[in-house]
Amino acid sequence: MLHLHHLKNSRSFRILWLLEELEVDYKLTCYERNKAYLAPESLKKIHPLCHAPVLEVDNRAIVESGFIIEYLLKHYDTEKQFKPADDNEAAWEAYTFWLHFAEASVMPLLVMRLVFTKVVAKSPMLIRPISRAIRRQVENSVIKGNLTKMLTMMEQQLQDNHWFAGEAFSAADIQMYVPVVAANAGKGLDKVKYANLLNWLNRCQERAAFKRAEAKGGSLHF
Amino acid sequence: MLHLHHLKNSRSFRILWLLEELEVDYKLTCYERNKAYLAPESLKKIHPLCHAPVLEVDNRAIVESGFIIEYLLKHYDTEKQFKPADDNEAAWEAYTFWLHFAEASVMPLLVMRLVFTKVVAKSPMLIRPISRAIRRQVENSVIKGNLTKMLTMMEQQLQDNHWFAGEAFSAADIQMYVPVVAANAGKGLDKVKYANLLNWLNRCQERAAFKRAEAKGGSLHF
Repeated sequence: MLHLHHLKNSRSFRILWLLEELEVDYKLTCYERNKAYLAPESLKKIHPLCHAPVLEVDNRAIVESGFIIEYLLKHYDTEKQFKPADDNEAAWEAYTFWLHFAEASVMPLLVMRLVFTKVVAKSPMLIRPISRAIRRQVENSVIKGNLTKMLTMMEQQLQDNHWFAGEAFSAADIQMYVPVVAANAGKGLDKVKYANLLNWLNRCQERAAFKRAEAKGGSLHF
Repeated sequence: MLHLHHLKNSRSFRILWLLEELEVDYKLTCYERNKAYLAPESLKKIHPLCHAPVLEVDNRAIVESGFIIEYLLKHYDTEKQFKPADDNEAAWEAYTFWLHFAEASVMPLLVMRLVFTKVVAKSPMLIRPISRAIRRQVENSVIKGNLTKMLTMMEQQLQDNHWFAGEAFSAADIQMYVPVVAANAGKGLDKVKYANLLNWLNRCQERAAFKRAEAKGGSLHF
């Protein structure tokens, strides 16, 4: 039996969405973020990391989005609908690249941006101008330039392909959904420069499984 | 023809090491970090992200450590020496988990720690106490607790297993090498609490392929 522990408005939305795409039976428990915007302590009982997603598989708790996706596809995607076959080289490469890139390259920058935003918000009024200046320095030297280059790579991929792994929707799209939504937060991505990326977001949101996931676990809005 | 663009003292050491384990022919170009501790601009000609590693495969540049590892294993690990077979479920799960966990969960915390260290070092003397206080706040609220939980998971895995994927060395060990070296930087990990992890580091460093990689691309010392 599969049991997903889902933190609302977090990366774990992806696993909920994938479970809906797979049309498998699963139990769902939803958690709300605490005041520090983190997973609540109750998740610690499920896995010591106290992060979401946690997927219980026959009472064994597994974590790490990329691994959970690969695990679910190996055991439940019997018709190979959501991962390109090994002999479809170009699609296999794209799938594997974006699956890793989402969490290893894009998300760390976006999380760092979030941490600096929280640092500024928590700073006492007197030192806030200094913490703002530090945030600006890191944003300009580490985050903005790298993120722009990554977004350009994403936009190019979707200019040439309907989905991240090529012509077919795959779990790489599910994995990429969170960083793209996070990068589109606040003022939002430029509608002309990232037209293909924003159209892809719409295509994701139109899927029946996506809508069922949203209805059960809430939408993502950073 | 494979051509590795290796930034000395960086994550790209792993790909160099894997190429040596695979005993394939490849060309190697080494780069030094610039004064800002980043990859030099000359890497931008190879790939727009200007990050290392970059592997050129027949003049096509591929990036992202986890993807490069999977690509090399698919095409060059013909005897399946460095990745557990699909039907070896426990080892396959461990391999896949640690391959993702290294870059998606551990490294982002260590990179954030590095960024805050640089922020403090670059701060003008007058505001340095404030940037130190901010670093301390993030270290205590975001980095230290999470990293300790992750190191505990690693230590437990190596208490029960010789290598990260079980009894056989695999590319998951190569992928995990960088975050463990980075976590061991500075004062170093507690020699009693992390005895198995530190013994595993030694076992990695004793491998012939590791020594050849070090001789060609320099050692890792954060």
